[in-house]
Amino acid sequence: MTKEALLLTIAVLGGTGKEGKGLAYRWAKAGYRVVIGSRSSEKAVKAASEIMELLEGSSSVVGTTNIEAADQADIAVLTVPYSAHRDTLEGVKSSLKGKILVDVTAPLVPPKLSKVQMPPAGSAAQEAKEILGEDVEVVAAFQSVSHEHLLGEEEIECDVLVTGSSKKAREEVLRLVEAADLIGWDAGPIENSVVVEGLTSVLININRIYGSKHSGIKITGVQKQSSEST
Amino acid sequence: MTKEALLLTIAVLGGTGKEGKGLAYRWAKAGYRVVIGSRSSEKAVKAASEIMELLEGSSSVVGTTNIEAADQADIAVLTVPYSAHRDTLEGVKSSLKGKILVDVTAPLVPPKLSKVQMPPAGSAAQEAKEILGEDVEVVAAFQSVSHEHLLGEEEIECDVLVTGSSKKAREEVLRLVEAADLIGWDAGPIENSVVVEGLTSVLININRIYGSKHSGIKITGVQKQSSEST
Repeated sequence: MTKEALLLTIAVLGGTGKEGKGLAYRWAKAGYRVVIGSRSSEKAVKAASEIMELLEGSSSVVGTTNIEAADQADIAVLTVPYSAHRDTLEGVKSSLKGKILVDVTAPLVPPKLSKVQMPPAGSAAQEAKEILGEDVEVVAAFQSVSHEHLLGEEEIECDVLVTGSSKKAREEVLRLVEAADLIGWDAGPIENSVVVEGLTSVLININRIYGSKHSGIKITGVQKQSSEST
Repeated sequence: MTKEALLLTIAVLGGTGKEGKGLAYRWAKAGYRVVIGSRSSEKAVKAASEIMELLEGSSSVVGTTNIEAADQADIAVLTVPYSAHRDTLEGVKSSLKGKILVDVTAPLVPPKLSKVQMPPAGSAAQEAKEILGEDVEVVAAFQSVSHEHLLGEEEIECDVLVTGSSKKAREEVLRLVEAADLIGWDAGPIENSVVVEGLTSVLININRIYGSKHSGIKITGVQKQSSEST
């Protein structure tokens, strides 16, 4: 258990969905205190107890409302469908001041999920930044990691590209990537989120055409120093 | 040598640069007739003879003006810096009617090469489509493959994502990817080009931060059938 893990509370907003539960599971396992948030605190409590069961009670996961979860968070992670993106953010805005929001949203527009269709801000993360303002750093990550893999024990063959509004915030989130037992890469400023989020549509297209369920990407040609994230 | 290779002429417009020469080399080696185009036919002739030398004269590579090359082409490939993108396309527009243009351009805006900065059309490929109109299919590909690798013999650890304005055009270009001894993926409609082109800035950022020269990407989690490209 790392020093950060003992100190930090991660709120997973909209954490009753599959992706949120998968991430919450990984971070709770790594020793972080995790607070699942939901519009319904009842559902959040249920999701939290499901995760605690998977971990056999050895970790700290609780459930509550999104606002309460955001209040308690050191870092908040947003895992809602794009249709709930703006409303959820506006609801927790004041609770996120001075914190980092990790936006996991891929702005998919049905029915053409395999076509990149970004909001006017340029990406979901940039839209989140517009909503949350100067006091919140916004980082995009984890869109393409499948929840089945997060709840499994096999090595995940999908790297996590991390873009965001400050280098310091990206570095903090890269530590969360590592804590989730994934390989992360600093993929640059928040303007690059269109690539990270849009990759979801590209992978949906690849899944459809080549008959896969879990296509992903790996970065090649770089020897990563293990020291860089310590 | 495949049937297509014997029949098709590929024009590499702006093909005197490193990326263009690298691609021309690969396709000439695979048996395609390759025409290098340039604003200066003299430079194009010189580039063509350099490639012929590398191939020890066993292939067909000639050099001429961009317009003449586009006229002769079955498929044209554009490898110019983004600053020359519009002018070059307007110059060859009428010669490309009924053909496929493969746009290799990553619309990088100096000095912030590591920041995604797309043109108003959404991507360089979409801008090319706007310029060329309904009579030309535009496909984006090859932006992230380094020219050093194209001229080398080692296996290239960088897959090619192929987006474009029709499925048929993407399939034709996927055959060119394979002919260049690379692995390609149908990454969806031309609107997805922002991901493929923007990945160049993401990889530039990764190169800078992690001290690499040739980071790339590989698609994971898909078992590709070798029959699909025949």
